[in-house]
This record gives sequence, structure tokens and C-alpha cells, in this order.
Amino acid sequence: MRLGDLAVLVSGRLEHGDPESEISGIQTLAAADSSQASFLANTSYRHLVEDSRAGVILLAEDAFPGIRRPVIRVSDPYLAFALVQRHFHPEPVASGKRHASAVIDPSARLASDVDVAALAVIGPNVRIESGSRIGPGCVIEQGTMIGERCTLHAHSVVTASCVLGRHVVLQPGAVVGSDGFGYAWTGREHLPIPQIGRVVLGDNVEIGANTCIDRGAIDDTVIGNGVKLDNLIQIGHNVRIGDLSIMASQSGISGSTVVGQGCQFGGQVGVAGHVHIGDGCRIAAKSGVLGNLEAGGTYAGIPVMPHRIWLKVSALIARLPELWKRVERGTKEKS
Amino acid sequence: MRLGDLAVLVSGRLEHGDPESEISGIQTLAAADSSQASFLANTSYRHLVEDSRAGVILLAEDAFPGIRRPVIRVSDPYLAFALVQRHFHPEPVASGKRHASAVIDPSARLASDVDVAALAVIGPNVRIESGSRIGPGCVIEQGTMIGERCTLHAHSVVTASCVLGRHVVLQPGAVVGSDGFGYAWTGREHLPIPQIGRVVLGDNVEIGANTCIDRGAIDDTVIGNGVKLDNLIQIGHNVRIGDLSIMASQSGISGSTVVGQGCQFGGQVGVAGHVHIGDGCRIAAKSGVLGNLEAGGTYAGIPVMPHRIWLKVSALIARLPELWKRVERGTKEKS
Amino acid sequence: MRLGDLAVLVSGRLEHGDPESEISGIQTLAAADSSQASFLANTSYRHLVEDSRAGVILLAEDAFPGIRRPVIRVSDPYLAFALVQRHFHPEPVASGKRHASAVIDPSARLASDVDVAALAVIGPNVRIESGSRIGPGCVIEQGTMIGERCTLHAHSVVTASCVLGRHVVLQPGAVVGSDGFGYAWTGREHLPIPQIGRVVLGDNVEIGANTCIDRGAIDDTVIGNGVKLDNLIQIGHNVRIGDLSIMASQSGISGSTVVGQGCQFGGQVGVAGHVHIGDGCRIAAKSGVLGNLEAGGTYAGIPVMPHRIWLKVSALIARLPELWKRVERGTKEKS
Repeated sequence: MRLGDLAVLVSGRLEHGDPESEISGIQTLAAADSSQASFLANTSYRHLVEDSRAGVILLAEDAFPGIRRPVIRVSDPYLAFALVQRHFHPEPVASGKRHASAVIDPSARLASDVDVAALAVIGPNVRIESGSRIGPGCVIEQGTMIGERCTLHAHSVVTASCVLGRHVVLQPGAVVGSDGFGYAWTGREHLPIPQIGRVVLGDNVEIGANTCIDRGAIDDTVIGNGVKLDNLIQIGHNVRIGDLSIMASQSGISGSTVVGQGCQFGGQVGVAGHVHIGDGCRIAAKSGVLGNLEAGGTYAGIPVMPHRIWLKVSALIARLPELWKRVERGTKEKS
Repeated sequence: MRLGDLAVLVSGRLEHGDPESEISGIQTLAAADSSQASFLANTSYRHLVEDSRAGVILLAEDAFPGIRRPVIRVSDPYLAFALVQRHFHPEPVASGKRHASAVIDPSARLASDVDVAALAVIGPNVRIESGSRIGPGCVIEQGTMIGERCTLHAHSVVTASCVLGRHVVLQPGAVVGSDGFGYAWTGREHLPIPQIGRVVLGDNVEIGANTCIDRGAIDDTVIGNGVKLDNLIQIGHNVRIGDLSIMASQSGISGSTVVGQGCQFGGQVGVAGHVHIGDGCRIAAKSGVLGNLEAGGTYAGIPVMPHRIWLKVSALIARLPELWKRVERGTKEKS
Repeated sequence: MRLGDLAVLVSGRLEHGDPESEISGIQTLAAADSSQASFLANTSYRHLVEDSRAGVILLAEDAFPGIRRPVIRVSDPYLAFALVQRHFHPEPVASGKRHASAVIDPSARLASDVDVAALAVIGPNVRIESGSRIGPGCVIEQGTMIGERCTLHAHSVVTASCVLGRHVVLQPGAVVGSDGFGYAWTGREHLPIPQIGRVVLGDNVEIGANTCIDRGAIDDTVIGNGVKLDNLIQIGHNVRIGDLSIMASQSGISGSTVVGQGCQFGGQVGVAGHVHIGDGCRIAAKSGVLGNLEAGGTYAGIPVMPHRIWLKVSALIARLPELWKRVERGTKEKS
């Protein structure tokens, strides 16, 4: 790719570089050679930029003004990096390969270009739209609908009657549609309640490795468009997650909780059941949410409090012994 | 199902309804139509009950006395809901289907009505009793015994020599019998200790999706009758869990810990190794248990304290900066 | 095995035993019979030692001096136990068995003695060295290199182009090489960034059941020699873990964090991204690490503090209501 074309791709401005020189990929500042681009999202490391042998560096408009080396000025270097990386590593295209060892029920309807890898199992009445790729060892149970251009990586499981939108990605071992955790106590045992709702994933959803999404008890569990869930996350039955929300690994959302749009969760967050989290909430890693949260807030702690308060609390918590001593001393002096 | 028969099924009393009218299933209050039943476990939403078009509603004896619509009075609406749901959605019955692609060792002994789905692997000397159903892609290793009417969902794994009681359910991706995490430090490396105990699951145990239960080091890891474990739970080697205990997702129990009968754990609880938790303990989500717990208590926090104390502590923790200021002011005034 | 040989194996000294008597295995103190050895790592249970019918007991040099029963004195009974257990339960040896149902790409190069179990999938250009054993249902994607004497248990997944050193063990359901969680915000959506780095595992690494290790974004994710990761752990993209570090289950390390050598993590620890943890750090279960940690320290809490301080804090936290009252009373008395 010509350097000039790269600048166009990222909507940037080339400085000190030959637009005709060729770029073959992207690398870190330290590892890039003159045929590769690099980028700096964080402006604090000037020496990394100066020392890098990269053919060009994607830099923020105001980073290191006057620097004398090939750079492309962009408004968001991380986004520019993403665009370049996607140019050099486009998504694989399905071509209708069907491995002979895959077990595809005769009643399943797959678009002609759907790829099915070795030892995948596709059950009765499954429907898979054009451009989707089913990885090795995947299991798709009866009646499930999978939209266009989905990618199911190795060993992902989608149980019966679930719905995946377009361009959904399941990482290896992801489970979509396990039974919700629902029992009624009879006085002698926990009686299992049949879980007959579905899981419905919107478009452009990504589900992490070994993440589990339970099917609804009666109604569905619903994950909105553009939601990204990291690895080892638990989504309970009848949870609803709004469009474009994003969660880091090992978080868990208990049953019937509603998460708004555009929320961001750190890792290992826990949310109780039947809670409502407003749009655009940001929740710090390891937090515990026990009640409703107002839209737009930033929260942390167990139980959560506003993040700015948590910053003060967390700075004082290690000084609790000191506080205790002071109070004891004060009490003694008085007596 | 006739409304009159439904009342009998749930041991309830029909009010304002025609016992001959037909009910075809159960739905939420908002979504049910006149051919469907519904239920209200929580009595606070009178308008939902009044507005619902459900053919009948399962209601607690004392909820909304005098309400003028078809209801069935029961002592526990949630249990009644479970009974109705189970009536309309009975467990599938095994019928001896064996998919041609399954790999069943000739030395394995399966009852004639056991179902084995596509691409399941059943190893040497495995024994599977009547009525069990083995899902697609399951792996059952040599010498394992599986009792009557078990359901192993897609991709669940049971390693060598484990024992499952009757009517055990493994959700997709569950792992029963991974090696315990046992190493001895030689001064140069962590030397792995062969883990030769088994996992023994009692009757009516349910193991969640991608939950892992390690085999014992020498003795067995033992899960009692009627225990229900949610998704993504970790059970360390030689743990013992008493009958009817129930744990929400992402909890972890370290090696050799003993959990009593009838305990209830919230999500993301962690328990240290070699700890004894008495019968009937309730442990709040995200708690950390470092020592023994007396039977019958309710606990919360890291480390756990009695729940009633934790309620006070958690209300004060966000006010720690205020407390600190007060103490500082008090000290200054004195000096 | 003769008792005399057992003493030699563990570099111990036999007391009160007949060196010619035979030992057939190891058992707990309570369960061992006279043909079995046992051990006591913890010296507090004298009655267990006296009551045990074990043929011999591995005991620390200074435990119960003068006790009148067959014992072998060793410097580290737990290590001695490991050595005996490994003697009686040696690792299985690969013998070149290839199950007919396994799908092995013709371009894959496997040493002649590599075992491949039923329904494993081995992709194009995979290379597997001598003595390795590939379990049932495993998926190894194209271009991956697997060193000598590795054991991949049932359903473990290694995605494209990863590298496993010698004698690596993957427990069931482990995922090596899932895509890192990397997106750039365009203003309208989270744009996925292709994750083109690899996962590189050193020698003698063990990865727990359903643990996930993300591939790097550009550079690799690197796990050092002798690292042991328990079940359900999350390792983010571009994490580096130093040799001989060990982590208990359900811990999570966010992207680009560097963990030093010889570190020990309890369960459910969370570490933020881009953090540096020095060599030999010990981090208590359930801790949250938000910043760099100095080598050799012991830490606990959310956020972490030195463990000795956390011990004091955790003893006081449940007394926060009492502290609050004292301060209130003090304030009142003054006014």
C-alpha cells in the first residue's frame, strides 16, 4: 500500500514522507522496520517515536509538533491503527467449503457460500445466512437462526431456537443458550423450571471465549446491536443489554437485569438480579452493583458508589488503622 | 389443559374462572393471552395483574383479595408456576437414538434406551444407565459411570473414572474431573502431583455451563444430592458440598473445603481452601470466606462478617472521607 | 515397591520399618492400610499419625520425635508425597495411536509416536513433536507448533499460529489463542481490531480447564516456562507472565500487563491493563491490582495494599459502625 493511500485511508495528513513509498503492514514502534507503519496513541513517549525505524507513524495532530520524520497526522491514532490493521488483515470470506466430517442435518438450510469446518454439528431446521463461517467442533442446535457473515469459532455452542443477527462473532467455547438457573423450592428439593425463552443476539455482537449466555425462562435474553462481551462472562436468564454496551472479562449479570445502551463495564464486575442500569454507565472493575444506577454515571466499589467518592474512600481505606488509633487516643485523652 | 385440572396440579383454588376453559401454556403477565396462564410471585404490581389478558393468574392466597378476574389461589405462586411449566414442557425422553457419527468404545455398556448425539465420544468401560441422553460433542472418558436419566448437554466433558448419580444435568461445556491444581515446590520448579481421586456427583445434581469440577488428589471430590451449581463456577480438588446446596455463577471453592447441606451462595463468592462452612449458611454475592463459618448464618463482605453488620458497614464505607474529616477537625480543635 | 527403595526415592530416613516390606501406593492417613504409604504435611494432628494403619508415613524430621511406628523422615513431606505419587502414577506415554475419526490435515507434521484421540481436529501445517498426546475433541488450528511430550486434554483449543513449548498440559476446555478484546470507537460503533499476535507458551506450562488466553494484538502474549494457571482464568492480549509464576482459579489479567517471575496469585484476583508486577510478588485471593507492584511484596485488598496492613484493615472494617458511633459521641460531648 502506498503511503499516500494510507493517509487517505485514515483521513490523515502526511508529513515528511514520500507518498509513493510502500507500506506492507503495521507494527509496534519498537519492532517496525521501514516498510511498516506504526502508531502512538499515548503521547508521552517521544523517544519511542524518534527511535522507531517505522516507515511512517500515525500521530495525533498535536503530538510532537515539528518532528522531522515521516508521520501521518490523524485525529485519533488508535482508530487510524484499527483502520490500517483492518486493511492489511481483512476478515476471511466464506466460500461454501463444507468439511466432509461435519454433521449437517438434511433439514438445515445453509446459504451456498456458508463454510462449515471439520466436525461441526448443525441440527434440524437450523438456518444460516450468506457469508457465515462455522468453525471446527461447533454445535448449533435445532431451529437456531444465524444471520449473514457470522463467525463461530472452534467449539462454540448455540442451543435450540436461538437467534444470531448479522456479523456476530463467537469466540472459542462460547455458550449461547444454556439453561437459566431457575428452581422452585418444594420444601424438599430445588425443582428445575424449564427454561423455554431464547437468546437473541443483535447485529455485530461479539461473545468472548467460554462466555455463557443463558436462555430466558419464559421471555428471551436479549443482547443489543454492537454489544461486545469479553471472555468468561456470565449473562443470566432474561437479561437485556442495550446497544453498543461493552464488558470486560469475568463480569457477571444476574437474571432479569437490564443494562442500558453504551455502558462500559470493567472486568469481574457483578450485578444483582432485577436491577436497572441506565444508559452510558461506566462501572469500574471488580465493582458490585446491588441496585439501580442512574444513566451516565461512573461507579466503583462493593457496593458501588460514585467513582469520585470511591477514589477518596480507596485512598483512606488503608489508613483505617491510623484513623482508629487517632479516635482511641482522642477518647482516652478526654477521659 | 383444563383450568380445573390446572388448579388441581398446583393444589390451588380457582376463583372467577370456568374450570372447563383450556390453558395451553404459561406466559408473563404482560404477554399472556386468554389461552395462557400467568403468575405473580411479587405482590407489588397490582396493575400488571389487572391489565393482564392471561386466562388465569396464579396468585398467593392473600394477594389482592376480592380481585374480579380468573385466578388460582396457591400457597407459593412461584412453585405453582414451576409445576405448570413442567407440565407443559416435560423433560425429553430418551429412546435409544445413536447417531452414526458418535464414537462409542465397544467395551462401553449403555442401556438400550440411552440417546447418543452426533460426534459424542464414549470411552472404554463407560457405563450409562437407562434414560440418559448424551449431547453432541460430549466426551465421556474411560471407566466413568453415569446413572439413570442424566442429561449431558453439548460439549460437556466427564474425565476418567468419575461417577454421576441419577438425573444429573451437565450444561454445555461443563467439565467434570479436570486435574486438581496440585504442585510441590522442588526449589527449582512446581512439580505436578498426579490427581488420582474421582469426582462423585449425587442424584439430581445440576452443573452449569463451563463450570469446572476438579478431581480429587487422593480422595474424591464429592457433590451431594440435589446440589445446583450455576455457570462458570470453580470447585477445587477434594471439596465436599452437602446435599441441596446451591451456588450462583462464578463462585469458586478452593481445595479441600467442606460446604454443608442447604447452603446458598450468591455469585462471585470465593472460599479459601481447607475451610468448613456449616449447614444452611447463606453467603452474599462477591463475599470472600477465609475461615470456618457457623451453621445457619448469613454472611457478606471480604472477609465475610455477619450480613446484618455488613449492611451497616456498607452504608458507612462511602462516608469514610467524611469520618476522616470529622476526626481531623476534632484533633485540630483540641490542639 | 520396597520400603527401603521408597526411602531412597524421597531422600529420607526409615525409622521402625522393615525395608523389605512392600508398598503399593499412597493414601490419606485415615484411609491407608498396611500396604500403603501416607504423609503428614501439617504437624498438628498427632492422633491421625498414631491411629493410621498406613504401612509407612512420610514425616518431617522434627515431627513427633520418638514416635514408635514405621515412618520415613524427610525434609519436605509434601514434596516426598509428590515423588511417591509420581512413582506410582507415571505420566502416560504416547505410542502413536491415531483414532480413525480424528481429522488430521495432510499437511500437518506429527512425530510418529504422537497420540491423537477420537474426533480431534488438526489443521494445515500444524507441527506436533514427539511424545505429545492430543485428547478427544481437541482443535488445533493451522500453523500451530506443539513441542515434545505435551498433553492436550479433551476439548482444548489452540487457534492458528500459536506455539506450545515442551511438556505443556492443557486441561479440558482450555482456549489458547482467542482473539484479544480490542476495538476502536468510531463515534458510531466499536470497530474490531484484527488480533494478529500469537500466544507463546514456554516449557512445562499448565493451563487449567476452561481458562482463556487471548492472542496478542500485534505482538505476542507470552507465558514463561513452568507457569501454572488454574481453571477459568483470563489472560488478556499481550500479557507477559514470567517463569514459574502460579495463579489460582478465576483470576484475570488485563491486556499488556507484565507479571514477573515466581509470582503467586490467589483466586479471583483482578489486575488492570498495562501494569507491571515485579518478580516474586504474592497477591491474596480477591485482590484488585490497579497499578505497578514492587518485586517481592505480599499484597491484598481492593485496591491492593501491603498484606500486613490489610490484615489490620480487615480486622477493623467490621468495626466501622462502632468507630462511627465513637466519633459521633465524641463530637456531641464536645458541643
